[in-house]
Amino acid sequence: MPELRYNIATKDWVIIATERAKRPDDFKREKKEDKEIPAYSSSCPFCPGNEERAGEPTSVIKDKDGNWLVKVVPNKFPALSCTGEPDKTNEGVYHSVNGVGVHEVIIESPLHNMTTAFYENSQVENIIKIYKQRYLELSKDPRIKHVIIFKNHGLSAGTSLEHPHSQLLATPIVSTQVANRESAAREYHDENGECVYCKMINEEIEAKERIIIENKNFIGIVPYAAFSPFHTWILPKKHKSSFGEISEEEIKDLASILKETLAKLYCGLGNPDYNYCIRTSPFTDSENNYFHWYLAVIPRITKPAGFEVGSGMFINASLPEQCAKFLREKAVI
Amino acid sequence: MPELRYNIATKDWVIIATERAKRPDDFKREKKEDKEIPAYSSSCPFCPGNEERAGEPTSVIKDKDGNWLVKVVPNKFPALSCTGEPDKTNEGVYHSVNGVGVHEVIIESPLHNMTTAFYENSQVENIIKIYKQRYLELSKDPRIKHVIIFKNHGLSAGTSLEHPHSQLLATPIVSTQVANRESAAREYHDENGECVYCKMINEEIEAKERIIIENKNFIGIVPYAAFSPFHTWILPKKHKSSFGEISEEEIKDLASILKETLAKLYCGLGNPDYNYCIRTSPFTDSENNYFHWYLAVIPRITKPAGFEVGSGMFINASLPEQCAKFLREKAVI
Repeated sequence: MPELRYNIATKDWVIIATERAKRPDDFKREKKEDKEIPAYSSSCPFCPGNEERAGEPTSVIKDKDGNWLVKVVPNKFPALSCTGEPDKTNEGVYHSVNGVGVHEVIIESPLHNMTTAFYENSQVENIIKIYKQRYLELSKDPRIKHVIIFKNHGLSAGTSLEHPHSQLLATPIVSTQVANRESAAREYHDENGECVYCKMINEEIEAKERIIIENKNFIGIVPYAAFSPFHTWILPKKHKSSFGEISEEEIKDLASILKETLAKLYCGLGNPDYNYCIRTSPFTDSENNYFHWYLAVIPRITKPAGFEVGSGMFINASLPEQCAKFLREKAVI
Repeated sequence: MPELRYNIATKDWVIIATERAKRPDDFKREKKEDKEIPAYSSSCPFCPGNEERAGEPTSVIKDKDGNWLVKVVPNKFPALSCTGEPDKTNEGVYHSVNGVGVHEVIIESPLHNMTTAFYENSQVENIIKIYKQRYLELSKDPRIKHVIIFKNHGLSAGTSLEHPHSQLLATPIVSTQVANRESAAREYHDENGECVYCKMINEEIEAKERIIIENKNFIGIVPYAAFSPFHTWILPKKHKSSFGEISEEEIKDLASILKETLAKLYCGLGNPDYNYCIRTSPFTDSENNYFHWYLAVIPRITKPAGFEVGSGMFINASLPEQCAKFLREKAVI
């Protein structure tokens, strides 16, 4: 019998389609001819030596010899413009805001052919550190209400650039989905006197069956109502509503879990395309006791189709418990 | 300057990214080697002669000689099971419902190589008639709360079956997105004393610039805050909250507009992959004065990436007004 599961934090239903269910191994990517990528490409604006084409960095982390390890540059084709004011217009049913915001690229490594699964832990720490720097810097801009930090890995995940990078997009409005999740979390807190994510973390630690990986400060799980195969949430164990509150010690622990999770996906599923994103409270409500920031990893293994578009629900042809077990037991080699 | 536009009906924001903007022509699909598809395939369960493999139809429309023109069969790999009761379980943060529901396939034509853009109008009428028959039949099942009728055309839209078909999935719950849209429409009605969709239709008829096509009973527009290029809404002009209320005359007009819109997409963009879906009120609230049913067509031209996953917002690199003009003026040949 298939099952409809409800995610009590996001209020989303998912169909766990057991009649169509596949074993975790069945999602392994067919061996494609992954072309050999060079460590340096003269045509790549993100490779060392091409700094002028990448643009003036807004943030850099360097090694002791002064070479950059991670840096942030403006996106050359920004979705939002960094100048101007977010003025509104409102005529009848037409409501708009000037597209003011910040769109940046985080160049994650000087090496053209690197991938997060193979970084040193210290490199992932640097990436998270620079995310935090930019987050805190942007939080001072009164025009900005929210920041989405995300990564697109591979063609199906929406990138065609080889050089390893992630992005941030700072918006002058809070998206409806983010606002809805905040208000769902607030409602749960009002009714139950606790953070729904803290509650979920405690229940997952007790149940054990959906845990992929855990350390002192973070836990990685496949959520009970995961909307797609191997969908993973990496949550800080301590309640913090905003990513900007991450401590030095937590950065180390997040780096270690993120790298390990991506390495398990790489080894277990054959370098699948994926997105990750950091879900955090808006700047307008950055410290609260109901929303709990986390990082979501979404392997792009299945395609949303007409049913997903028409209902906002997903059909997941895998069991979250089996996906978690598969990744938990997958050795990284 | 880019622009953030708000869809007052769905409450969704979209970034209209003018810095990245493309002309409508730029979205034309690269000439792929579309392989020659035969009119009949002996291995296809949906082709005439293979009726046993398709399963017992739940609904059929035949020609005067008794040959089927359109028929509905159970999905062989259903996401939900048609037997049992939608019993609930509720333990801590884990909340589920038995996956009871109906998952059917609408075989749209006996011809293996047909596509909606080239159907006779009468064939599209038959398809909509059979959608309505199934909708009304399923509305009598007390276990079912909502029905999504949808079509996946092409690989990027989530189908690999060549034979032209659409699907319906009847669920024992109302998805959160559908519930949110209902409540947004109710709220607008409470505050303004009118249906937000009726208001939008009137403003679009006045503005003219986002209309693709129009007849007595329907209008096809690219919404002001369309979330992707050529995203189209086909709305009945008369307020009706549920698809099941569509009249005979309206079926004729919807068939004509749907076929013409898909033919314009076919000719203008080179047979793009697309989904369409019917958005209608849940059975539990099927007649109301605030929600307005419609059919949405979503060409799958761009890929949602990490930003879309993390925010629920979309970046649209096209101007809705330009997309509407392009399709409005596109002759079907």
